Amino acid sequence: MTYCVGILLDAGVVFASDSRTNAGVDQVSTFKKMTIYEQPADRVVVILSSGNLSLTQNAISLFEQSAHGAAGGRSLWSVPSMFDVATLLGDSLREVRQRDAQYLQRANIESNASFIVGGQIGSERVRLLLVYGEGNFIEASPETPFFQMGETKYGKPIIDRVITPRTSLIEAAKCALVSFDSTMRSNVSVGLPIDIAWYEKDTLRVGLQRRITESDAYFNMIHTQWGDGLRRVFAQLPDPRWDDDQLPPQQYSQVFK
Amino acid sequence: MTYCVGILLDAGVVFASDSRTNAGVDQVSTFKKMTIYEQPADRVVVILSSGNLSLTQNAISLFEQSAHGAAGGRSLWSVPSMFDVATLLGDSLREVRQRDAQYLQRANIESNASFIVGGQIGSERVRLLLVYGEGNFIEASPETPFFQMGETKYGKPIIDRVITPRTSLIEAAKCALVSFDSTMRSNVSVGLPIDIAWYEKDTLRVGLQRRITESDAYFNMIHTQWGDGLRRVFAQLPDPRWDDDQLPPQQYSQVFK
Repeated sequence: MTYCVGILLDAGVVFASDSRTNAGVDQVSTFKKMTIYEQPADRVVVILSSGNLSLTQNAISLFEQSAHGAAGGRSLWSVPSMFDVATLLGDSLREVRQRDAQYLQRANIESNASFIVGGQIGSERVRLLLVYGEGNFIEASPETPFFQMGETKYGKPIIDRVITPRTSLIEAAKCALVSFDSTMRSNVSVGLPIDIAWYEKDTLRVGLQRRITESDAYFNMIHTQWGDGLRRVFAQLPDPRWDDDQLPPQQYSQVFK
Repeated sequence: MTYCVGILLDAGVVFASDSRTNAGVDQVSTFKKMTIYEQPADRVVVILSSGNLSLTQNAISLFEQSAHGAAGGRSLWSVPSMFDVATLLGDSLREVRQRDAQYLQRANIESNASFIVGGQIGSERVRLLLVYGEGNFIEASPETPFFQMGETKYGKPIIDRVITPRTSLIEAAKCALVSFDSTMRSNVSVGLPIDIAWYEKDTLRVGLQRRITESDAYFNMIHTQWGDGLRRVFAQLPDPRWDDDQLPPQQYSQVFK
């Protein structure tokens, strides 16, 4: 399993991905799911990968080969927009699936794969896109300023509650780590290290990039304080007083012998 | 979709279920997913239902008909253990699926169904069981004192963090409502009203039973205070200081043009 999140903000865009892959519970490995492309003063593109590792790795390789003319000269280093980058990436994924998916299918191996891709090219706005397994894609907007992939549900409530376009990069990164903490607590197939990066609008350079490992003091602090904080808020919620106005039993589909 | 949870405690057992069913987003209805059977001083059995509504309703009907001799005289009112109750319920589900599943399959309709069943019979211990769609079942234990069905993930982190066998009935009910609040915030296919009930060990009578509707002041308070509390805890977490010891770029699969 995988957990990846990309968050689009007025200030820029934040990315985070775990690095656990598994083929059954007895074959667990660590693979980086974040790839960063930077040409200072020109473009920054960050890609997060989810799904079948051979498909995503192959698609990324083809996507990078496009820089050497494979796609008729259109490459991630030359196209003028993030829309074109997502198109190239979707095309690469389609090509790989066209080649491999039938073989995987014969072995009953799932051939899904998807990407979160974001960044900025030149004077274009900062953009964040989600490329589906079929190669089509959608773009984040202020109403839905984030995309998740993989094991998305455990970590979604805190993002839903905290993130708005006005959130700062550092707060969004903190929120991403809390979201990862909730996910890893409930699903062992999502695991450290976490790769986290952000890009600040109009800088055309990678901002933060960091790998969070088991020994990361800040993440361990988040883990402890967040859990303690949740339990504290929970304890402070008043108990229900349900003896006052209980509904009559006939409102329930209750069978009394 | 559905969300149901049953929590086994030293003090008894707590049940909660939503009541939204849907056949596509344009056909949303309200059906109670909790059924309570009580023979005072003898037994209390509570069943929560999840999955295809025709299958679960039919299985419950057959299960109730067992009280009239259909199962060779063994009925929910006469069997000596919760193990037997789960067996009867599993058998009822098997019978319904035997009859209906092939027809559903031909129409590509999913025929899954499952039940959480718990309570106490006579001097037996309080028990909580999860009956799978195949009619087999497992039982909750102190290490895993709760079962969920349906849209389980959004609401699991708070249960993971709060519930132990020593938790009181009222605290567990409060926790169940927080868990529902998180679930309903992130998945519109889980909806009010919520049915909540608890059974206190060795009383052999239903304890609390209550229907939580849109106008429930306590649930609305939980909704507001829990969200505010989460945001407060989040705001109190220190920001990361990642300028001190940033790793060198070569640790990342980063491509500089």
